[in-house]
Amino acid sequence: MLFTHNYTVRFSDTDAAGVVYFANVLVMCHEAYEESLAAAGINLKEFFTNSSTAVPIVHAEVDFFRPMFCGDELLIRLVPQHLSDNEFEVNYQIVAVSFPGQKLAKANTKHVCINPASRKRTHLPELIIQWLHHGYSATR
Amino acid sequence: MLFTHNYTVRFSDTDAAGVVYFANVLVMCHEAYEESLAAAGINLKEFFTNSSTAVPIVHAEVDFFRPMFCGDELLIRLVPQHLSDNEFEVNYQIVAVSFPGQKLAKANTKHVCINPASRKRTHLPELIIQWLHHGYSATR
Amino acid sequence: MLFTHNYTVRFSDTDAAGVVYFANVLVMCHEAYEESLAAAGINLKEFFTNSSTAVPIVHAEVDFFRPMFCGDELLIRLVPQHLSDNEFEVNYQIVAVSFPGQKLAKANTKHVCINPASRKRTHLPELIIQWLHHGYSATR
Amino acid sequence: MLFTHNYTVRFSDTDAAGVVYFANVLVMCHEAYEESLAAAGINLKEFFTNSSTAVPIVHAEVDFFRPMFCGDELLIRLVPQHLSDNEFEVNYQIVAVSFPGQKLAKANTKHVCINPASRKRTHLPELIIQWLHHGYSATR
Repeated sequence: MLFTHNYTVRFSDTDAAGVVYFANVLVMCHEAYEESLAAAGINLKEFFTNSSTAVPIVHAEVDFFRPMFCGDELLIRLVPQHLSDNEFEVNYQIVAVSFPGQKLAKANTKHVCINPASRKRTHLPELIIQWLHHGYSATR
Repeated sequence: MLFTHNYTVRFSDTDAAGVVYFANVLVMCHEAYEESLAAAGINLKEFFTNSSTAVPIVHAEVDFFRPMFCGDELLIRLVPQHLSDNEFEVNYQIVAVSFPGQKLAKANTKHVCINPASRKRTHLPELIIQWLHHGYSATR
Repeated sequence: MLFTHNYTVRFSDTDAAGVVYFANVLVMCHEAYEESLAAAGINLKEFFTNSSTAVPIVHAEVDFFRPMFCGDELLIRLVPQHLSDNEFEVNYQIVAVSFPGQKLAKANTKHVCINPASRKRTHLPELIIQWLHHGYSATR
Repeated sequence: MLFTHNYTVRFSDTDAAGVVYFANVLVMCHEAYEESLAAAGINLKEFFTNSSTAVPIVHAEVDFFRPMFCGDELLIRLVPQHLSDNEFEVNYQIVAVSFPGQKLAKANTKHVCINPASRKRTHLPELIIQWLHHGYSATR
């Protein structure tokens, strides 16, 4: 499954060096992840505040190849990967709309499904498994 | 001039009370302001890092009427107002796409045009005066 | 009650104009509010996620007098004011540690006590009334 | 060189899942890095807006072991490592003040020294080399 999200760099994303503050690139990637979940028919409010299952990020990494500036129009390409009964990862590539052949950054987030009360691992919900494999929810 | 911007509430906008963190409502409003400038043909990177004129915010205020949640689809309506040779303000109303008759929040930012080096007041640039009155730049 | 909080401006607070991004001044003020609550013996985790009472911000405003830069050492002076059975406000003044006679910014937040489930107004908790009047909790 | 920074988790750091939003852990680490530079006598405003040399982050990663909540008092332990004429990395460990034997998160940032105009690699400035090896600047 491949999902593409358009993102315009905001003034609030930048820092006094004139470019996007490093950690905000991960915030943009998470926004693309949220959009792909919503496009699959997942209710974001319920998903992120669910009391029986949560899929917190246990690892994140990001590589920066070129600076990004306020107003830049970006494409964030997202590919999720099913790893196990209770784990998945998401890979992200960021390019400029005007020059899509050149990577500006790439990132990865790894998620583990837990019960938020016990913090113990539990099976991924069916909605997420459908999103991982088809990019949509059959129950939409 | 009236400009409308669509905004989806992000997980990063929320706080542990489960709703949008108060200061992030002003960030959303600034994003709508940036979009309206871009729609008028203003180059955001040049505009926000210009060495001869800047229009920093000297006052901001926001009223909250109802909570906003992750995934909520919002409309931000923006109306700028020309105040003087070197001042303008922008008024914002935020409503839900699904229920546009009910205000969730309203905000206001007041901007003064200065020379960023001397911090002295200077005339608003012509591009901003066109945006204030027509919502677009004649030189676009 | 007067409470003073020391704050060093962070790189993440700044934007591509080289100064603190306007909405982050309200984030700094909220940090001073949190510190004053903690100094009064209030448990922040419980306070901000309490299921029976919450004191969300219904109005915030901020005035900017001089720019703030990365690394600047600031003092945030906070004075809360008891307004009614279910309302209080907090006034903030921000100055540089090195030049405390000159205001860099001032801000105000107005809070209403509600039941977070019904969103109806309810009486301020005793801990907050003690904080408003004495800056500490008698039950600490 | 080992540097330790105290950090209290802020309400603005949290998200609707009730814990610290993942990317904000990297923001906290960068704050510890800024504090260690300032403790070494480096002027942060000049350092982060210098027109001849900059040390942007080219890679960042973070692992999350346990959730962090609003009000939690943390210790961030930072160890920088000199890699080459134009590169260094910083390793971070985050623990609770109340239970310092148990890691909550760990992170790493890799920095490359460039000329910000040409974006070409250049030698690390002497001040940074001193910070890397002694944690202070001899010219302080």
